[in-house]
Amino acid sequence: MSLLADVLAPAPAAAPPAARGEDLHALVRRLYPICRSITGDGVRQTLAILQEYLPDLQVHEVPTGTPVLDWEVPREWNIRDAWIKNGRGERVVDFRQHNLHVLSYSLPVRGTYALEELKQHLYSLPEQPQLIPYRTAYYAETWGFCLAHEQLEALAEPTYEVCIDSTLAPGALTYGELLLPGDTEEEVLVSSHVCHPSLANDNLSGIAVATFLAQHLREQPRRYSYRFVFAPGTIGAITWLSANAEAVARIRHGLVLSLLGEAGGFTYKKSRRGTAAVDRAVALALREAAVPHRVAEFEPYGYDERQYCSPGFDLPVGCLSRTPYGQFPEYHTSADDLDFVRPEALLDSLHLVQSVAGVLEANRRYQNLSPYGEPALGRRGLYAAVSGSPDAARAQRALLWVLNFSDGQHSLLDIADRSGLPFAQLQHAADLLLAHDLLTPVPDPAP
Amino acid sequence: MSLLADVLAPAPAAAPPAARGEDLHALVRRLYPICRSITGDGVRQTLAILQEYLPDLQVHEVPTGTPVLDWEVPREWNIRDAWIKNGRGERVVDFRQHNLHVLSYSLPVRGTYALEELKQHLYSLPEQPQLIPYRTAYYAETWGFCLAHEQLEALAEPTYEVCIDSTLAPGALTYGELLLPGDTEEEVLVSSHVCHPSLANDNLSGIAVATFLAQHLREQPRRYSYRFVFAPGTIGAITWLSANAEAVARIRHGLVLSLLGEAGGFTYKKSRRGTAAVDRAVALALREAAVPHRVAEFEPYGYDERQYCSPGFDLPVGCLSRTPYGQFPEYHTSADDLDFVRPEALLDSLHLVQSVAGVLEANRRYQNLSPYGEPALGRRGLYAAVSGSPDAARAQRALLWVLNFSDGQHSLLDIADRSGLPFAQLQHAADLLLAHDLLTPVPDPAP
Amino acid sequence: MSLLADVLAPAPAAAPPAARGEDLHALVRRLYPICRSITGDGVRQTLAILQEYLPDLQVHEVPTGTPVLDWEVPREWNIRDAWIKNGRGERVVDFRQHNLHVLSYSLPVRGTYALEELKQHLYSLPEQPQLIPYRTAYYAETWGFCLAHEQLEALAEPTYEVCIDSTLAPGALTYGELLLPGDTEEEVLVSSHVCHPSLANDNLSGIAVATFLAQHLREQPRRYSYRFVFAPGTIGAITWLSANAEAVARIRHGLVLSLLGEAGGFTYKKSRRGTAAVDRAVALALREAAVPHRVAEFEPYGYDERQYCSPGFDLPVGCLSRTPYGQFPEYHTSADDLDFVRPEALLDSLHLVQSVAGVLEANRRYQNLSPYGEPALGRRGLYAAVSGSPDAARAQRALLWVLNFSDGQHSLLDIADRSGLPFAQLQHAADLLLAHDLLTPVPDPAP
Repeated sequence: MSLLADVLAPAPAAAPPAARGEDLHALVRRLYPICRSITGDGVRQTLAILQEYLPDLQVHEVPTGTPVLDWEVPREWNIRDAWIKNGRGERVVDFRQHNLHVLSYSLPVRGTYALEELKQHLYSLPEQPQLIPYRTAYYAETWGFCLAHEQLEALAEPTYEVCIDSTLAPGALTYGELLLPGDTEEEVLVSSHVCHPSLANDNLSGIAVATFLAQHLREQPRRYSYRFVFAPGTIGAITWLSANAEAVARIRHGLVLSLLGEAGGFTYKKSRRGTAAVDRAVALALREAAVPHRVAEFEPYGYDERQYCSPGFDLPVGCLSRTPYGQFPEYHTSADDLDFVRPEALLDSLHLVQSVAGVLEANRRYQNLSPYGEPALGRRGLYAAVSGSPDAARAQRALLWVLNFSDGQHSLLDIADRSGLPFAQLQHAADLLLAHDLLTPVPDPAP
Repeated sequence: MSLLADVLAPAPAAAPPAARGEDLHALVRRLYPICRSITGDGVRQTLAILQEYLPDLQVHEVPTGTPVLDWEVPREWNIRDAWIKNGRGERVVDFRQHNLHVLSYSLPVRGTYALEELKQHLYSLPEQPQLIPYRTAYYAETWGFCLAHEQLEALAEPTYEVCIDSTLAPGALTYGELLLPGDTEEEVLVSSHVCHPSLANDNLSGIAVATFLAQHLREQPRRYSYRFVFAPGTIGAITWLSANAEAVARIRHGLVLSLLGEAGGFTYKKSRRGTAAVDRAVALALREAAVPHRVAEFEPYGYDERQYCSPGFDLPVGCLSRTPYGQFPEYHTSADDLDFVRPEALLDSLHLVQSVAGVLEANRRYQNLSPYGEPALGRRGLYAAVSGSPDAARAQRALLWVLNFSDGQHSLLDIADRSGLPFAQLQHAADLLLAHDLLTPVPDPAP
Repeated sequence: MSLLADVLAPAPAAAPPAARGEDLHALVRRLYPICRSITGDGVRQTLAILQEYLPDLQVHEVPTGTPVLDWEVPREWNIRDAWIKNGRGERVVDFRQHNLHVLSYSLPVRGTYALEELKQHLYSLPEQPQLIPYRTAYYAETWGFCLAHEQLEALAEPTYEVCIDSTLAPGALTYGELLLPGDTEEEVLVSSHVCHPSLANDNLSGIAVATFLAQHLREQPRRYSYRFVFAPGTIGAITWLSANAEAVARIRHGLVLSLLGEAGGFTYKKSRRGTAAVDRAVALALREAAVPHRVAEFEPYGYDERQYCSPGFDLPVGCLSRTPYGQFPEYHTSADDLDFVRPEALLDSLHLVQSVAGVLEANRRYQNLSPYGEPALGRRGLYAAVSGSPDAARAQRALLWVLNFSDGQHSLLDIADRSGLPFAQLQHAADLLLAHDLLTPVPDPAP
């Protein structure tokens, strides 16, 4: 009967993660003021802060002009100051007040412009007149300012003095990378974009969740190796893919993390494959967490899953967000700020990705070693000695489901989906059956 | 930026078809008075009129007794006159008033019949007492009259004189055929039955739509060759199939056109295969046309798709109608007349089949030639230079969908179904990407 | 025209079964008083009664200790008497009043117990205080009594005298088996558990339906051989599977019959395969019977389908019940008695399984021997000579469905599911087409 207690007791949950929501929010707060773009010192400063959390994080510099897939690494952009001054020399638009004021990747400019000409370079949101929009001009060889529509409408003088003290020059593209080796070389990729300036949800939330996930997994036994990539959107993912053919071949599962800090329900966008294990693991984790969520089909725009899921790579990488991009009014505006992002939402996001990792780690195919009829579980102490107890019945169901479908074809995820039983209970059943030599793991199918 | 305009502007629609609804209705009106059957001069007269519209239409005569698949060509039936006269010599039922009055394929008869005996040969519709039914007696060696139930009930004399001045004798089965050669020998089959007498919707509407579709396609560049068959139902299709093994092997898509003249919603009955390209093209065209419609599974009765989809041929041929046979009260009665068929309904039907042909023509599989990551669209002028414009975003989505799913496995139809984007927008995106050497067509899979 | 009558007339139904509901209920009544368990004389007495109905039923005795798959045959349990006596020597709990009073497989015991100690061995249902529960202690080396909670609460004396006059000793496991040979050696397995004591629905109802099904099939021509197994739950099925590798390999379809006597709707639990012919045959029979029912996915607990569907065997065996186990309040209590089980429910259950057998017998794949176009049915008298008759139209539809889908790939069940036509009408159509050399049977696919 000693083992019966084992059958009845669910496996102890992993120790509660040390991280608190405040810890994640504190990281977001530190990163928020930095003016990031797809290249330049903003990314370097960001990665330097992340190294305080993850000392093994490697920072890579890829020189301007390096061919990367169909692209090449662009010139490096840096900015010291920018402003529009009125006739009294007052800064009516000031980069130092908000780094969203500058169209990202603006060429340097200095001069006096007639208001009408200047307006060709101004971007605002007439329907959200108090918010500064976030706009970029990568590869466009232009300059501009973003400002609240109210500010724009207040411009009444015939001319303004304009300064963007930026440089666009040969340099490097910078990205960060951390590998947590596991028992196997098979990898799980976690990727977040680090190119957005002062936008808290997009994507400091994703960066913070990825960082604390790495801290968590660092302390866990790991079947998989985990590779974290902190890179500028699009060109950063392309640069990483270009340089890492061997790592790419080892990726078995992947997640792009973005927009994980506000209070909305979760949205998981499936990988291009649509039925990858990660797609099913996230769906199961969301279902078991009993949180509001939506699972959406893949579409080839969004974040860096666009690159990971391009048809040449077709990696099993999905994207986890809360409210999707473009579907909340604060998106790509100055309202995506430190108040918009909530400690508890960040923490719930972290817990969810931790549980996804837990499912991926435990998901296996097994072979039932006693497949003809049910094995005599009672003889092994795996069966309640007196029938009729509801707890024993639940534990027995998990044992029977694992035994019946462990034919080498069905994974624990398959069994969880088919049975509706909690994954953890099936995982515990599999562990018990393994300990009694009733199961043996079988290799995963070729990726 | 010159190419950006191309990205944003949808491809110009094909020039509006010259045909007007009145033109189609005029053809129906010319054909309506003719007494057609599965053989005989009515079919010949019908095809002679079609040759005025389609001078290259070939007329084939297949002699009585010719073995065709499991059947043989029947004797030829012709009729000059028929009547039932009362005691005063008045025609109380008169073929000259309506050719539905004669049971089609009636043997000749002349004589005086007691009313009770005569009634064995009379067909009426007690529930639609003012309408003459359409009935046939192919292969039955009998004779009969069809009449309004009111007429039948008014017959009160003890005997009537009866005459059917028909012949059933060795002759030929007549059908029409038009081939519009295309860039390839692969064929699209369009088939309409021409055996019904004065019934406007069934099937002069289908004949008219097919005729004007041929006029339209004659003026278009064509990837496919188009074969139009105007043949009597069942035995005509069997005769054509029997004689055309080589053409049959070239059929890639096909449509039976019937019942396309009244105002009801469309009904598309899928081919036996159920997932043929034509099945999906029609479903897409109906969806994009945003008209009331229903897509039904294949069933082995209906029109000549019965023959084309018999298991030995199993051709990808569906059937497009509006309200299906038997489901409107005018079906197979004298109420299926020239008022029942509407010019605008005929024209909408023509436009729909034209758009189906357009989808089939443009539907291709492509291979993305830069499949690793997204290609640098901006460098090629294919990407809006300044992000944030909604029009550019829409055009970009089409580019990204075509690029991501052009892996040689997915056709434009697949991409349209998966993305929900308009087929024309995807087609335009594919054309742009082809022009920039980012795509190459791949051969269609073996049929 | 003589054959047309054949087309229109549905095949005559099989002669109505001789069995009446009362006959099935009478068998249940005879079996009800016997104290069955997984071994012992109760099973022997049960099988002896079944031999009165099925003289060819073989009774097998498998000695204690025989290895059977992962198990071994347990000791044999028999019981003569059991009671709890109060201080006045009165039996306050008495096996002779209800054999559920003894925990099945109790060790022998005799002595005086303090009430508190005795209560460790008493089982009741506080929420159903007037009912005696059914509990077992197989393999548990303990003893106990089951009693109404009211009885338990009335126990107020400090000590009670206790007796269980049972034996648990080397002996045998007993099961019954009947083979009805058919035209082929391919087998249909029908299995019912015979180990429950005085519980009428669970499973005397299943035993009765199986017995009368065997009586019915004995009188029918049979394509399949039918094997009936009456065995104790779990260990009995395991014992049979262990000893019958050759028969197992011949099983093409199978049903576990249980809980078929009360008035609830039917529940069919599919085999592990989920799409086996028996799964589809039962679903069709239920649909055509137009009775309340539910078709459930397989799950690896329930009755002996657990063993037949273990992954090493994975036999196409489903389980037919009415209200499932555990879902009616009388389940495993003294309320599952002779009043709970109804003659008409038993008879309807029998008719349903008879119709399932009928579908399995008739279900075939055919090859259309005239697959190019429709064959000329009219020439063969298979088509109404004058079109327009609704009866003829219905019969023609069945002919056309069978012809069109008889491509060697589709069975009559496939055609019934796809067409929605009654199976019997399709079966009749197939018989007509066979008689006219338009079809030929093709072998079933390998199991």
